[in-house]
Amino acid sequence: MIAVIKQGTSEKQVENLIQWLNTQGVSTHISNGEYSTVLGLVGDTSKIDIELLENLEIIEKVKRISEPFKNANRKFHPDDTVIEVNGNKIGGGNFCFIAGPCSVESEEQILEVAKRVKAAGAAFLRGGAFKPRTSPYDFQGLQATGLELLMLAKRETGMPIVTEIMSTKHLPLFEDVDIIQVGARNMQNFELLKELGRTNKPILLKRGLANNLKELLMSAEYIMAGGNEKIILCERGIRTFETYTRNTLDVSAVPMLHELTHLPVVVDPSHASGLARLVKPMALSAAAAGADGLMIEVHNNPQKALCDGAQSLTPDQFDDVAKAVNTVREAIK
Amino acid sequence: MIAVIKQGTSEKQVENLIQWLNTQGVSTHISNGEYSTVLGLVGDTSKIDIELLENLEIIEKVKRISEPFKNANRKFHPDDTVIEVNGNKIGGGNFCFIAGPCSVESEEQILEVAKRVKAAGAAFLRGGAFKPRTSPYDFQGLQATGLELLMLAKRETGMPIVTEIMSTKHLPLFEDVDIIQVGARNMQNFELLKELGRTNKPILLKRGLANNLKELLMSAEYIMAGGNEKIILCERGIRTFETYTRNTLDVSAVPMLHELTHLPVVVDPSHASGLARLVKPMALSAAAAGADGLMIEVHNNPQKALCDGAQSLTPDQFDDVAKAVNTVREAIK
Amino acid sequence: MIAVIKQGTSEKQVENLIQWLNTQGVSTHISNGEYSTVLGLVGDTSKIDIELLENLEIIEKVKRISEPFKNANRKFHPDDTVIEVNGNKIGGGNFCFIAGPCSVESEEQILEVAKRVKAAGAAFLRGGAFKPRTSPYDFQGLQATGLELLMLAKRETGMPIVTEIMSTKHLPLFEDVDIIQVGARNMQNFELLKELGRTNKPILLKRGLANNLKELLMSAEYIMAGGNEKIILCERGIRTFETYTRNTLDVSAVPMLHELTHLPVVVDPSHASGLARLVKPMALSAAAAGADGLMIEVHNNPQKALCDGAQSLTPDQFDDVAKAVNTVREAIK
Amino acid sequence: MIAVIKQGTSEKQVENLIQWLNTQGVSTHISNGEYSTVLGLVGDTSKIDIELLENLEIIEKVKRISEPFKNANRKFHPDDTVIEVNGNKIGGGNFCFIAGPCSVESEEQILEVAKRVKAAGAAFLRGGAFKPRTSPYDFQGLQATGLELLMLAKRETGMPIVTEIMSTKHLPLFEDVDIIQVGARNMQNFELLKELGRTNKPILLKRGLANNLKELLMSAEYIMAGGNEKIILCERGIRTFETYTRNTLDVSAVPMLHELTHLPVVVDPSHASGLARLVKPMALSAAAAGADGLMIEVHNNPQKALCDGAQSLTPDQFDDVAKAVNTVREAIK
Repeated sequence: MIAVIKQGTSEKQVENLIQWLNTQGVSTHISNGEYSTVLGLVGDTSKIDIELLENLEIIEKVKRISEPFKNANRKFHPDDTVIEVNGNKIGGGNFCFIAGPCSVESEEQILEVAKRVKAAGAAFLRGGAFKPRTSPYDFQGLQATGLELLMLAKRETGMPIVTEIMSTKHLPLFEDVDIIQVGARNMQNFELLKELGRTNKPILLKRGLANNLKELLMSAEYIMAGGNEKIILCERGIRTFETYTRNTLDVSAVPMLHELTHLPVVVDPSHASGLARLVKPMALSAAAAGADGLMIEVHNNPQKALCDGAQSLTPDQFDDVAKAVNTVREAIK
Repeated sequence: MIAVIKQGTSEKQVENLIQWLNTQGVSTHISNGEYSTVLGLVGDTSKIDIELLENLEIIEKVKRISEPFKNANRKFHPDDTVIEVNGNKIGGGNFCFIAGPCSVESEEQILEVAKRVKAAGAAFLRGGAFKPRTSPYDFQGLQATGLELLMLAKRETGMPIVTEIMSTKHLPLFEDVDIIQVGARNMQNFELLKELGRTNKPILLKRGLANNLKELLMSAEYIMAGGNEKIILCERGIRTFETYTRNTLDVSAVPMLHELTHLPVVVDPSHASGLARLVKPMALSAAAAGADGLMIEVHNNPQKALCDGAQSLTPDQFDDVAKAVNTVREAIK
Repeated sequence: MIAVIKQGTSEKQVENLIQWLNTQGVSTHISNGEYSTVLGLVGDTSKIDIELLENLEIIEKVKRISEPFKNANRKFHPDDTVIEVNGNKIGGGNFCFIAGPCSVESEEQILEVAKRVKAAGAAFLRGGAFKPRTSPYDFQGLQATGLELLMLAKRETGMPIVTEIMSTKHLPLFEDVDIIQVGARNMQNFELLKELGRTNKPILLKRGLANNLKELLMSAEYIMAGGNEKIILCERGIRTFETYTRNTLDVSAVPMLHELTHLPVVVDPSHASGLARLVKPMALSAAAAGADGLMIEVHNNPQKALCDGAQSLTPDQFDDVAKAVNTVREAIK
Repeated sequence: MIAVIKQGTSEKQVENLIQWLNTQGVSTHISNGEYSTVLGLVGDTSKIDIELLENLEIIEKVKRISEPFKNANRKFHPDDTVIEVNGNKIGGGNFCFIAGPCSVESEEQILEVAKRVKAAGAAFLRGGAFKPRTSPYDFQGLQATGLELLMLAKRETGMPIVTEIMSTKHLPLFEDVDIIQVGARNMQNFELLKELGRTNKPILLKRGLANNLKELLMSAEYIMAGGNEKIILCERGIRTFETYTRNTLDVSAVPMLHELTHLPVVVDPSHASGLARLVKPMALSAAAAGADGLMIEVHNNPQKALCDGAQSLTPDQFDDVAKAVNTVREAIK
């Protein structure tokens, strides 16, 4: 961390600052220039509150050199984290498909989709029971009933379940869920993150629509600081000025996150574009960029889906995408 | 609402769609063009799920003509909403200052700041007890103790309290809070909004960092759909590519929201720029644009503030800003 | 195109508007609703000035249904455009590599790089002679001398040349250039586009840093409206809130553009991330998404490159990327 | 400037780098930390090419501490620059209105508007002769004829003229223009900026739609590096995710630019929102924030304006805005 001292600051004031920093466990080096004096902070600066420092009268600005996240940082944990659920692994070279409908709608629907995606090679079944919708007048999910239908599908097919949580008060309902998803709009719902940090469930953490990778990693750090290190990061498209697609897939997030962190990174090509016909090229792109998994919306009757039908594949289309993805993964080995 | 029908759709299919729409309470008009057939949907379309429609095989695209929010819509409620707490009014021509420290830190601090901002004309005391911070290692607020100190300040000064809620599970602690604030990062925490819709407290709803005005109004609609119509909207700066300021104040949101909705609109110039020296010009700007109130961070010792000190005014600076704002408000009458 | 008529407009006024629209070659259909009257415009609306219409007192808003670009529109030209230079083809299933240094620096440099990238399978040699730099104090390119060195490399290797133009006044110097590049910052330099529309050179048109696909296609339309239909579109990364990468590659632009237009689409993974170590995963991603070509920066000594060295590959790295890309292309066939 | 040295770099390599930097006129200080070695560069670093440095094998990253612009920097020129044309001053406490139609359309139109805005207190007449339009099929301006009509209006009213240039080849036509405007889409048309740096005309430089303030100042620096220091900066709204307004006025740019540079700053509230009914609140906002001038579109018949009519005021509306702005300016003195 670098702190630029304002012109006109007395030596005594700088001295005091240095002593205070030493008590915080960081040591300092000083560079005196014509226009500015620069203080280099050395040691574990991840726990220094940057705003507190910027705040001092004698400080012009502060810049971080090292990252403010620690548990999620590959520098301190060089080996890939591997998440394992019922023998299905994600990360460290293990690739998986997470597939299923946007929303759980009925027993028939979830069972049919589960069987089809399992047959096509999906390791995990996804399905929304609690749905975050922009309008209060849109379908909000089957909620507790939806979770029961997911458990039924799990018993019938043996597939572990991934589903989204929207409030800490629903946590008791998630006891048999295998991977708890935090949606994009809740990426910085810090109270939810803290609570999830006290569970021992794997968490699939989606990147917020206008959040950068550092913020995503800080949110992972919230969960990890509570003791839960089983986190899967998910790139699902960001908000840009483009209007033909719903969001814009940031495929460079995959190699960049692999460099910054040891946590596995999956991609959701369905939400990234919002268009079923773009799911295949985006899935291939993500695989080619080294994603550890793909989360894909599949519906037995997308025409009648209660939400996000426009971005859902049919089971036949998913078969085709899964095969193509495997071919690309083979090619880049 | 306009639905463009795909080329090659049979008359029978269009007929079926029209009949279904009629059962939803909307009537239709049809325009046949060379390249496309366009269906105009007439009536209350705010409860039509746009994705469900886009989803049908025969639909090319759907565009809204009227707004998807209804309770918040000025078209249906032409008169300004006025929020009143202990005789202090916001909206409908009533202007107010909401001032206080970013975080409640101690009895001495909150009492001193409260007395000073009251003397300068502030109607409401703000102060954070639960603090949303990007890093888990930064100061998270005094929490329950912070709320107690706010209540103490309320008793001592008579000022009503505005403070932020971060989780539905903290609601019981907010019983004596006068206005509950929903922060920018929770603007689309829909479970929290629903729960607040079931209270009868005024809600100060902050715009998300990358959310547009329609989304802000849809979040207000979530609260209003639950029966609570006492909402104050707050523009607090949006995320842009600018780096000299922390966020960018969207001052045009003020007149635009006044046109779209009957709800009062306040501006937070402290978070909008993140720099104490920009608070005065931004406060004057917001007043000149017709804001119904200003929410300003004031600290008795910004140098030692535990968070956001860089954007806090001293009580003396707040005196000066309040006077200048009143002069500008007088000038634009 | 849909025009919403304001409430309270007289029938006579609507009648007049319809008659005027008819003289512009578009016919109309009218839908009368309770809250609004909607006019559907049918026919070739690409030449209707949307602002002129929005501008009329009786109009509330105007929305386009069909695209405002015509020559570039796949609807009117279903077959892929194929650009051919000296037997090297781009588009319509023909893939190519365009490779070379960011800037031409010396005879030795450009010849060495040209030979190496040709051996690795590149069809075109790229190299900057005129360099757009954010700072006037940064290296601005060798200019006319740079173009001469590119011609020398062309004679020595037989490779056609791609290089950027920054001003219409330099056009005479580009007579022997094979493909003229328009950089991201000049995507809406309309005078330059018009002038290039009067040449018969293939144009490689880069997407602006904050422009959407419709604007990119409108810029292509500027060139095509002048008579030059040989355009290659280039996705090179857009500006987002991410800071770890210089820009963010929008890989979904590839399939989306293929749907909207018949023009070939190449991707520049070097500028998209600004980091040499991300070029390979981004190149594979773009190939997997169906790009018609890749434009990659290669330098014989990236450590000493005068600009953008941080994103340049060595010739050995380019060999590796080219092989991997070919394997992925084989896999997705 | 701060350069972080990669771990494992030898002392000899660091020594060599320091010697090279010394030859560039900058001296260095070194801080050795556990995880990184940081080199502080001291002196005039504005001419150091940051990419060249980042590029070296031994460098992990480089961060600027001081600004890369020099001629435009207030640190080196503390006094406000005042631009004077025919006795009309901008900057240094001198405020002015620049008003007129978006496009010059006819003798009658430009004369009528000129007389009206002069009577209302405008110092400069604006009017577009060359118009940058997104579509090649939209009205492109009267071009040379438009400039002649502006000159006529200047002779009749004595008002100096502000009009936009789109290509260096049109420069000879601009000999009698008083202030040459560079539009938002040409803010980084560096060849145009260089050429304008060789003239002695005042330049009104508009901020690009997605450019930050540093980039705006670097573009000003391009002109100033050529010897022309008469630059007026113009904030005209930036691109955001908001759709109700065409662009979003960044009113904080006014005080921020006043801090960073000595150049005058004017605001264009007409383009900033694209809506005539928002021009007044945005003009008042900008005045309250300390703008040195306002550039406002006025048309004698906005209903029939050939472009941007939706954002033009009538002469009567301009009278009203000018009065209100003067009252606000009086209030903030």
